Amino acid sequence: RVNADRLWDALMDMARIGPGIAGGNNRQTLTDADAEGRALFQSWCEAAGLTMGVDKMGTMFATRAGEDPAALPVYVGSHLDTQPTGGKFDGVLGVLAALEVVRTMNDLGIRTKHPVVVTNWANEEGARFAPAMLASGVFAGVHTLDYAYGRKDPDGKTYGEELQRIGWLGEEEVGARKMHAYLEYHIEQGPILEAENKTIGVVTHCQGLWWLEFTLTGKEAHTGSTPMAMRVNAGLAMSRIIEMVQRVAMESQPDAVGGVGQVFFSPNSRNVLPGKVVFTVDIRTPDLAKLNRMRARIEAEAAEICLEIGVGCAVEAVGHFDPVTFDPGLVETVRRSAEKLGLSHRDIVSGAGHDACWAAKVAPATMIMCPCVGGLSHNEAEEISKDWASAGCDVLFHAVVETAGL
Amino acid sequence: RVNADRLWDALMDMARIGPGIAGGNNRQTLTDADAEGRALFQSWCEAAGLTMGVDKMGTMFATRAGEDPAALPVYVGSHLDTQPTGGKFDGVLGVLAALEVVRTMNDLGIRTKHPVVVTNWANEEGARFAPAMLASGVFAGVHTLDYAYGRKDPDGKTYGEELQRIGWLGEEEVGARKMHAYLEYHIEQGPILEAENKTIGVVTHCQGLWWLEFTLTGKEAHTGSTPMAMRVNAGLAMSRIIEMVQRVAMESQPDAVGGVGQVFFSPNSRNVLPGKVVFTVDIRTPDLAKLNRMRARIEAEAAEICLEIGVGCAVEAVGHFDPVTFDPGLVETVRRSAEKLGLSHRDIVSGAGHDACWAAKVAPATMIMCPCVGGLSHNEAEEISKDWASAGCDVLFHAVVETAGL
Ligand SMILES: NC(=O)NCCC(=O)O
Ligand SMILES: NC(=O)NCCC(=O)O
Repeated sequence: RVNADRLWDALMDMARIGPGIAGGNNRQTLTDADAEGRALFQSWCEAAGLTMGVDKMGTMFATRAGEDPAALPVYVGSHLDTQPTGGKFDGVLGVLAALEVVRTMNDLGIRTKHPVVVTNWANEEGARFAPAMLASGVFAGVHTLDYAYGRKDPDGKTYGEELQRIGWLGEEEVGARKMHAYLEYHIEQGPILEAENKTIGVVTHCQGLWWLEFTLTGKEAHTGSTPMAMRVNAGLAMSRIIEMVQRVAMESQPDAVGGVGQVFFSPNSRNVLPGKVVFTVDIRTPDLAKLNRMRARIEAEAAEICLEIGVGCAVEAVGHFDPVTFDPGLVETVRRSAEKLGLSHRDIVSGAGHDACWAAKVAPATMIMCPCVGGLSHNEAEEISKDWASAGCDVLFHAVVETAGL
Repeated sequence: RVNADRLWDALMDMARIGPGIAGGNNRQTLTDADAEGRALFQSWCEAAGLTMGVDKMGTMFATRAGEDPAALPVYVGSHLDTQPTGGKFDGVLGVLAALEVVRTMNDLGIRTKHPVVVTNWANEEGARFAPAMLASGVFAGVHTLDYAYGRKDPDGKTYGEELQRIGWLGEEEVGARKMHAYLEYHIEQGPILEAENKTIGVVTHCQGLWWLEFTLTGKEAHTGSTPMAMRVNAGLAMSRIIEMVQRVAMESQPDAVGGVGQVFFSPNSRNVLPGKVVFTVDIRTPDLAKLNRMRARIEAEAAEICLEIGVGCAVEAVGHFDPVTFDPGLVETVRRSAEKLGLSHRDIVSGAGHDACWAAKVAPATMIMCPCVGGLSHNEAEEISKDWASAGCDVLFHAVVETAGL
């Protein structure tokens, strides 16, 4: 078993970097706080005898050597970046649990055939730079490096500039590493495990996603002196689209969600009808055909809504992944590890996207989940217990040792 | 008649300060650009032999002496501040036409009994600091100076700090000046005069307004892993309220408007359901009872919408004025001036709020309007012709001379 206290202490130490405003964290990708978190993680990796490599996307790979020089490494990790008002565990747990796994191996003098690489993927959240899972996406060949470097934050700063600025632009070609397997441990971010009183989620699939960025063009005009009949109100069109997305999601039940998290009104003045409104629709379901039907329906209905109001409507897909089926052999390894440890478990579909979803394109991959209180995530109040954290880490430890071979 | 070219040149010179991004202006209240615009205006006033006074709200009063030492001054003006994407004429025309009136008096050697004071009210737009017409509101005793100083921009900077920072905190007590009359010339900002081919709007009333700032409290949560049934989506509640405001406005026809220009999502991340949404509803009509019925209905229906979704709903009135009836004697003076000059005119109700609305509380007041192209305002493409500009200025000149007495 892993050292539960050491894992928890590492989580709490990392949470001190980039504090939020309500007990959580704001350690967004490629900010100064991100750089500080990376440096702390690096110092821990070096103390554990690992060798650090950094690729051109800023992803960090800390290697524990294996016995067989020809064997491909087992990668284990997640991400240290957070939402602007994120929790202390989303992503962080997976990276620091991977570190705890190698620390425990060191304690126990365990040597594995395959090297084990503790991994911190860059820009998983996609909060500052869309899309999410950007670095693992480049790694898996889904995006080009140029595309990734050109992604802009709301202030217009690019990924490439900011990566250089914080000093974490590495030398390695992205995706040059070959993986024997990829394992990721993460909090569920949903309510199922807690509600069913299960300690371990054996993740079999990940639902697919579209992020549709709408740019609506109306006519900036005075809110007081512009008669109702003369208005070309982009904000009204947005409201109708948000309501329609809700309806499409409800009509796509079960196992489908849809919502809008980000909205920019322009010029965003109380007495100006917005001339431009930009917002992003997030839709997800594990069923690929349904996912694409939802997208088609939302785009068609949005076009009708805009036509009726006279608003221009442009849509760009700024994020996408198909539903993923994880490697059955690795899934079975996780299930077996949970059983061996006597931990209650159930199979589960990930509601969120994860770097494992892209890694699954280039290697056998899977995930382990632990419950989180009230299913709450992407919220500073995100919470897990120390027992939950370490139980999943024990499963990860056993699965990694089995996969890396003694 | 006034000097049409000189008036137009002054407008174009002022428009060079705080340029916008599409041919208009961004010279928001108490910014560096505002300070620069004020300095230019001051230099023009001094060249015209006027004496500058500045009050504790930063309003500028440039006095042309009268013949009778005991006579109260006639105030003529508007505002030089703009929307973030404002036009070159909204407000600016009124200030620079007032200057043109005294320049013409100087040219013609006209002496008046009452002094004439060219006035630049601070923070008319209310774009950076709500409410609109803040300085004239303090002048008229509607707001306290402390209330005004404490108003915050979206970055949390206060009016008081920013006024000091740009160096335009004056010494005069706000409202200490007594007015014989107040006259304001402004573009219509609506479509009526142009559509009816009238050159002059004789403004008899101004419609009333409520700005209702809604703060909706939902539950920040992951857009992917949070089931539809568990969501407490403040953005969805906002959308329903925007749609409802549209419906209430449509059902309050004729002569009523409602809309939303400003929206803040928090944390405003694509994959986080907003935990907090702040937005401002703007409703207006010339009928006081109807205005208050609209407000009551919107607040009641919004509460129902929020209750149904489970979202917390707080409402603060951040701007208000009752409908205003301008002084019948001054209105008649304006009408007579237009007729004397052979200009087509019609009575009109102002759709926007103006400093004249507050000045009307402490003095006989009225307004003159000229058409604007397509009724467009609060838009960088706001446009008027030189002929329209000078025709209204001619009416202003005659009305001021008549009111100030020879
Ligand atoms: N796990 C997680 O929150 N990832 C962010 C990408 C997503 O929105 O699913
Ligand atoms: N005239 C003008 O646009 N004033 C701003 C205040 C308002 O919204 O009416």
